[in-house]
Amino acid sequence: MSSKLIAIVAGVGPGTGASVARTFGKSYPVVCLARTPESYNDIVKEINSNGGKAIGISTDVSDAKSIENASAEIKKEFGDDVAAAAAIFNASGRFYRKPFLELEESEFFSGLDVSGRGAFLFSRAFLPLLLKGAEDQKSQHPPTLIFTGATASVKSNAFMSSFSTGKFAKRALAASLAREFGPQGVHVAHAVIDGVIDIERTKGWLKDAGEDAKIAPQAIADSYWYLHTQPRSCFTWEIDIRPYVEKWTGFA
Amino acid sequence: MSSKLIAIVAGVGPGTGASVARTFGKSYPVVCLARTPESYNDIVKEINSNGGKAIGISTDVSDAKSIENASAEIKKEFGDDVAAAAAIFNASGRFYRKPFLELEESEFFSGLDVSGRGAFLFSRAFLPLLLKGAEDQKSQHPPTLIFTGATASVKSNAFMSSFSTGKFAKRALAASLAREFGPQGVHVAHAVIDGVIDIERTKGWLKDAGEDAKIAPQAIADSYWYLHTQPRSCFTWEIDIRPYVEKWTGFA
Amino acid sequence: MSSKLIAIVAGVGPGTGASVARTFGKSYPVVCLARTPESYNDIVKEINSNGGKAIGISTDVSDAKSIENASAEIKKEFGDDVAAAAAIFNASGRFYRKPFLELEESEFFSGLDVSGRGAFLFSRAFLPLLLKGAEDQKSQHPPTLIFTGATASVKSNAFMSSFSTGKFAKRALAASLAREFGPQGVHVAHAVIDGVIDIERTKGWLKDAGEDAKIAPQAIADSYWYLHTQPRSCFTWEIDIRPYVEKWTGFA
Amino acid sequence: MSSKLIAIVAGVGPGTGASVARTFGKSYPVVCLARTPESYNDIVKEINSNGGKAIGISTDVSDAKSIENASAEIKKEFGDDVAAAAAIFNASGRFYRKPFLELEESEFFSGLDVSGRGAFLFSRAFLPLLLKGAEDQKSQHPPTLIFTGATASVKSNAFMSSFSTGKFAKRALAASLAREFGPQGVHVAHAVIDGVIDIERTKGWLKDAGEDAKIAPQAIADSYWYLHTQPRSCFTWEIDIRPYVEKWTGFA
Repeated sequence: MSSKLIAIVAGVGPGTGASVARTFGKSYPVVCLARTPESYNDIVKEINSNGGKAIGISTDVSDAKSIENASAEIKKEFGDDVAAAAAIFNASGRFYRKPFLELEESEFFSGLDVSGRGAFLFSRAFLPLLLKGAEDQKSQHPPTLIFTGATASVKSNAFMSSFSTGKFAKRALAASLAREFGPQGVHVAHAVIDGVIDIERTKGWLKDAGEDAKIAPQAIADSYWYLHTQPRSCFTWEIDIRPYVEKWTGFA
Repeated sequence: MSSKLIAIVAGVGPGTGASVARTFGKSYPVVCLARTPESYNDIVKEINSNGGKAIGISTDVSDAKSIENASAEIKKEFGDDVAAAAAIFNASGRFYRKPFLELEESEFFSGLDVSGRGAFLFSRAFLPLLLKGAEDQKSQHPPTLIFTGATASVKSNAFMSSFSTGKFAKRALAASLAREFGPQGVHVAHAVIDGVIDIERTKGWLKDAGEDAKIAPQAIADSYWYLHTQPRSCFTWEIDIRPYVEKWTGFA
Repeated sequence: MSSKLIAIVAGVGPGTGASVARTFGKSYPVVCLARTPESYNDIVKEINSNGGKAIGISTDVSDAKSIENASAEIKKEFGDDVAAAAAIFNASGRFYRKPFLELEESEFFSGLDVSGRGAFLFSRAFLPLLLKGAEDQKSQHPPTLIFTGATASVKSNAFMSSFSTGKFAKRALAASLAREFGPQGVHVAHAVIDGVIDIERTKGWLKDAGEDAKIAPQAIADSYWYLHTQPRSCFTWEIDIRPYVEKWTGFA
Repeated sequence: MSSKLIAIVAGVGPGTGASVARTFGKSYPVVCLARTPESYNDIVKEINSNGGKAIGISTDVSDAKSIENASAEIKKEFGDDVAAAAAIFNASGRFYRKPFLELEESEFFSGLDVSGRGAFLFSRAFLPLLLKGAEDQKSQHPPTLIFTGATASVKSNAFMSSFSTGKFAKRALAASLAREFGPQGVHVAHAVIDGVIDIERTKGWLKDAGEDAKIAPQAIADSYWYLHTQPRSCFTWEIDIRPYVEKWTGFA
């Protein structure tokens, strides 16, 4: 493990984010970004006590100053020549599911603030580190920038506009970055998570759907790791993920 | 022509917007919104001198206060019980085509400000007028909310993220509104303009491509009018438009 | 009306096909193709008795010999220099909705035979007539080749593979032909009919969905006519059509 | 390795098919299907001499009798209670890239014969074996049915209709089967291979594009193996694959 080649995960909570941090933490020092320490403290501690290295930085990804601060912290910790093997944007805004005409402007923009502004600021801050990881193929696996999307990234239902507008925008960003930075050796990918994730908050959901009807966060993390290991002759831009019982949405 | 059933066009410039205003102005009083009077003065004058009725209101669609002011002006002009037969959102932000890492935050957001915030504010302000037009099928044709999109609404190329993120978000908004307001009798549609529009600014473009290689703004306006005349048993959500010689993008 | 510029409609039954024939029959002599005379007799008679001109030819569009015979009949009737202003492929195979492992090979191919082979044979037979109509812009409106699709053209549900495989194939054909023949002046379009069409056979359907919950065949015909009238600077490749109350599928 | 749980690969040639057979051959006995023994002899020999088990069966996947014969051979070799852990449909028809009006009927159908009829016959023959593999979760990884697609599965260019119609149809089949058999524990997936594969036949291609500009067949096989290892709470239906330098097509 090179101490100079790190993984950065934004949106570290108890679900996908923690699993992604744990998985990438087996190969790289991990930087965990979340609004509050409560979100990342446990996983940071766990990684560090298992022989890995992790730090947490309280960050509001939709705020330019806050992202700049995270960048500075990372350089303080890992040096100015730090490079990244992976950057995973897993943050999501609050989700207001209500009739369109009842949406406050701030509610409507909760999605675009995180999935639009946040994804932009995160990419702008950490693509230079990924590019550094791609130089001379320093990173064993091509440096990877992954965006977590949702059903709403490809389908925009009624009452969902505050969520889907941000998700559509994030998908557009991911596609554009893939085309620009792929030829520079950075693998940009987008994951459409089309189902309920199995976390504390969804414990009571889908009770009658049987075992494995909710997506295991670790399985998402494994798929991200797989994307990371793809050689540069074989980059996947987009995968969709859903439980086997899901009445699914998607491209066809 | 009912003086109480109006058409509202945002993004009235010398191209599509003016043609749309002219076309809908044959059947309805037209409200033309644009940042500056220079953009709408000519077409407003033309419609009024041809026996129609038009007013222009200087409006920044991405600014909540400015949209509120436009609403107030409309009510002052047409009465508190004004209803709308059509609202066309044709505004677009400035377009910064450059390497991602050279984008200023404000440049990146120029697209989302207009196509995201602007489309939201416009829809929120004028959907109530369209719903009023749908009551008792007051409007002969189902009231229609049309969003102008672009190639970048469905494809996000390198160097285009400041543009495509907004366009993707607008398309998500259009799809969600179509599902919510269609059953209430309001026809929401999205047009993917996949080609160069034939306006003053593009005069020198595609010179070798022959006649009709650029889209006539009037043809776009005619297609919007056609969408408006569709009965409620036959709503089209999305059309793509391109010149016959276009090497086209699109859904297949 | 030039007697040498005709419209050809395949799949003329009591619904969309008859309405399309009636609509195009106001401007062009119409050739109605269907397996059996019962399918086209009424509309042929109606058009002829209203001052238009129509003929019917019993044709199995999935059979090369049968399509060749139709071509020969058309030349016998309208002369060897006959040109076409429009050709509309509205034929559909029988639809076997059942578990995949219960499908006979012949059942699975019922869709591909008509929507694949049929659409190919129809296009190959009549594109030369459309190209002739495009020469010197002989036809006032660009000659138009329209394919009727369905929800299953873009979404392939369980138990639907015998239907969706053909519809997907037809959509692929339409997209490829649009790209090849658009620059030659022939407008190729594809319509995604995403709802129940209001015909005798569907009389009892959607009873509780209220008025206009099924698509009026005449409204589909009007949309096809609109596509036909688009100038060559403004070709639409694809439209989707659904009733205002439809819980819709589609591209977003 | 259970001798009763096999992998079946159709379209075993020197490229993707052989790599897939090699990869799955490390965990399962492999049945290699191809039109002629020359296509599978080398890889069958290689697997057997490396301690694995493989057999080849000369099969025309677009011919019902030939597929039935393959099924019979498989049962003769592995017993009537044979189950499958994986079935990969990698066959492709000959590809006629030419102006539409120059296509013979047989040329047009070369794609649909293999990608339509072949994919149907293959699925119908081997889904029962995959279902058997899913019983009581007999297979460690959910039994997996993978279809190899191409750029032409989602985009249908001019001169490509004989290829894209089959690929679109195959994608429709894959989507429908995923929805029907996913809930029964069989993982159905579709891969969009969007680039040139690095095989003998493409040796001289893309010479100026630099290293890794063509997709390594082994990388495709690795991605198929990854899909196979996904747990049933996390099924991916579709992945796209392209070299990092590819000017790519795709969904956005």
